[in-house]
Amino acid sequence: MKLLRFKHNNEIKFGIMERNEIVTLEENFLNSVKKTSIRLSLNEVELLSPVLPSKFVCVGLNYMDHANEMKEPLPSEPVLFLKPSTSVNHPEYPIFYPKQTKELHYEAELVVVIGKPAKDVKIEEANNYILGYTCGNDVTARDLQRKDVQWTRSKSFDSFAPIGPWIETEIDPNSLYIKLILNNEIKQRSNTSNLIFKPNFLVSFISSVMTLLPGDVIMTGTPSGVGPMKAGDEVSVVIENIGTLTNKVV
Amino acid sequence: MKLLRFKHNNEIKFGIMERNEIVTLEENFLNSVKKTSIRLSLNEVELLSPVLPSKFVCVGLNYMDHANEMKEPLPSEPVLFLKPSTSVNHPEYPIFYPKQTKELHYEAELVVVIGKPAKDVKIEEANNYILGYTCGNDVTARDLQRKDVQWTRSKSFDSFAPIGPWIETEIDPNSLYIKLILNNEIKQRSNTSNLIFKPNFLVSFISSVMTLLPGDVIMTGTPSGVGPMKAGDEVSVVIENIGTLTNKVV
Repeated sequence: MKLLRFKHNNEIKFGIMERNEIVTLEENFLNSVKKTSIRLSLNEVELLSPVLPSKFVCVGLNYMDHANEMKEPLPSEPVLFLKPSTSVNHPEYPIFYPKQTKELHYEAELVVVIGKPAKDVKIEEANNYILGYTCGNDVTARDLQRKDVQWTRSKSFDSFAPIGPWIETEIDPNSLYIKLILNNEIKQRSNTSNLIFKPNFLVSFISSVMTLLPGDVIMTGTPSGVGPMKAGDEVSVVIENIGTLTNKVV
Repeated sequence: MKLLRFKHNNEIKFGIMERNEIVTLEENFLNSVKKTSIRLSLNEVELLSPVLPSKFVCVGLNYMDHANEMKEPLPSEPVLFLKPSTSVNHPEYPIFYPKQTKELHYEAELVVVIGKPAKDVKIEEANNYILGYTCGNDVTARDLQRKDVQWTRSKSFDSFAPIGPWIETEIDPNSLYIKLILNNEIKQRSNTSNLIFKPNFLVSFISSVMTLLPGDVIMTGTPSGVGPMKAGDEVSVVIENIGTLTNKVV
């Protein structure tokens, strides 16, 4: 099932995809999935981030090849950082190039979407708390990341967390091709089977620290091949069996 | 004016302090300050965190003496990190000692409370976006902070961000005595005049990165003297002309 959030006639609505059509839902799918009789085509609506996370919990250095390219040692436990709720961004919306950086980077990531409040969840029960998976771009001002040592500023600018285009609820997250395309050129190419810490483990690990709320997301880390974007670039995160998240840098 | 949020007869209410009495407000003071005729005494209510921040933006190493004790170089710009909204805690509520740490530390901090949406605010206009100031304890699992290098996990456990007891709207934040008392012993003692980066500068700096929302807070950093707490300890942050925030470790 593909769950989505969109704008239609200036109203925010929720839907599911059925045979390339949107079936509108009665309310937010975080509450219930009840279909209405209203069907819309994708080109009638403006897609929004499928959720508005109260927090983005992000995992650093979770692909071996990316840890190597960043010249960082492999972590024995996940390295966590947060992006603020105000950094959320939507499919096809602009990523704003801040004046404070000269090195704006893309990072393609598989994103776990939480469906139920989760605290101290066991690995083998984590699946019950996961609503599904979407694509994310963990936009990063690489020069500020190096300067600050703490990664927060470099990853927290408004518009730095595009997620979407929808949440796929029926996939195995542990074996999906993931790639990043910049202006029709493939820049990152990997498979989520290369994740050091898997989604179920991450839900358990993170929920042993903080309560995860419905709509919160875990950005699971990026593979090797990170690199710069400039104004005018079009950047897409593509994940097998989920879809494509495209944004333009302005 | 002292703005507060509290529970009374199991309902959440807002109020202002007048001569040691609470005057109940019609609605959240973030919307308007309209008094009702209902007056309550402090011992009839349960104080809550005066706001529920959508984000805690925190500043590391913002007192020279603390940067020295942490053996960190003085930052040329504020070092930012985030605590998640789920870490919020209330006056007199327990701080939970997580099993993952053996080194739970207190950090007394002056907390800036944002009153209006703030983006790209100039230093000289920052005051217009500040609702007031309260006390905060940036509870930190020091061993995890050292291990992770990124500070997020060590500072993000549920209950790790007590703030309160209320928001003082009419003070100069740049010259306030601040101290931390652990079981009747003074452990930290400084003055906000020792802050490297001042509240107005911080609002400007942070809002050049991310939009600050009403009720968001900036934790301005802690002076020297950080140290451990154990289960059973009572910990208080005291700031001149604001008040005292007390919690017990369990």
